Amino acid sequence: MRVLGVDAGLTRCGVGVVDGSLGGRAMLVAVDVLRTPADAEIGARLIALERGFEAWLDAHRPDVVAVERVFSQHNVRTVMGTAQAAAVAITCAARRGLPVALHTPSEVKAAVTGEGRAGKEQVAFMVRRLLNSPNLVGPPDATDALALAICQLWRGAAGARVERAMSALATGGRR
Amino acid sequence: MRVLGVDAGLTRCGVGVVDGSLGGRAMLVAVDVLRTPADAEIGARLIALERGFEAWLDAHRPDVVAVERVFSQHNVRTVMGTAQAAAVAITCAARRGLPVALHTPSEVKAAVTGEGRAGKEQVAFMVRRLLNSPNLVGPPDATDALALAICQLWRGAAGARVERAMSALATGGRR
Repeated sequence: MRVLGVDAGLTRCGVGVVDGSLGGRAMLVAVDVLRTPADAEIGARLIALERGFEAWLDAHRPDVVAVERVFSQHNVRTVMGTAQAAAVAITCAARRGLPVALHTPSEVKAAVTGEGRAGKEQVAFMVRRLLNSPNLVGPPDATDALALAICQLWRGAAGARVERAMSALATGGRR
Repeated sequence: MRVLGVDAGLTRCGVGVVDGSLGGRAMLVAVDVLRTPADAEIGARLIALERGFEAWLDAHRPDVVAVERVFSQHNVRTVMGTAQAAAVAITCAARRGLPVALHTPSEVKAAVTGEGRAGKEQVAFMVRRLLNSPNLVGPPDATDALALAICQLWRGAAGARVERAMSALATGGRR
């Protein structure tokens, strides 16, 4: 099973491909950050991202695409760009008939670290460890995309684990 | 000059085409509301909208596409769907090399009614009047899409009018 994780964003959009099986080891295939200039027109930015997603889908032929389910944590301006970049990724995947999975940031953190409120550094640390790639460096967008892909790989086998962490989070109160 | 206005939304997406010239009378060409089922997957909804936009672009060959610039007025869940539907419309237009214009709801209301805080009913009334289409009925999504198109037609000739109404709005305080 091959998963493309997309950490959606207009300015920086993380894309990461991971191979693995339910319950098996996850393996890093490729990771990068697509960028579009903040001063370009929105239309030009979205079609640049569309071309980027198409190239990644062509190159890596994932079985499923995992995208962050966006909530209101961030400021609205950021959320808008995230939602629009995510919409393009989802549309590219759906056009090819690929299933699209949406995971909340808490679900991703819980899947990768066991803790729904883990910090960026902890997520990056666990992504490097889980993918046996200690030298993997890069912006959080890159490791977040890989974390999304790992989350998708594991939610079948480790669904119960995610559920438990989410319950703990709910019990402990939400932000 | 032909303008396609898009009142973006996942569940109901207004599309309206208006012909006109700077300062001249605006004429209704076509208007409809694209709908996607609320219980369908997001990917299916976005490609259904994409097909709808493509069909409208093919059928009416607009010179420019006008889309609402989304802000935080609505609740975040609504904003997300609006942003995602808008992203698909913008991408379809940009792919064809068409210019995309973004207008805030206040700009649209000011252009059509002279008042940046006009209500839905007032906007619909003025759209019917400006397009000389007293019998035009339909949900606000339809008239809002036409208002966006009219706003785009007029912002060249009537830019000053919009500016004045916006200044008055700014002076009078914002929501």
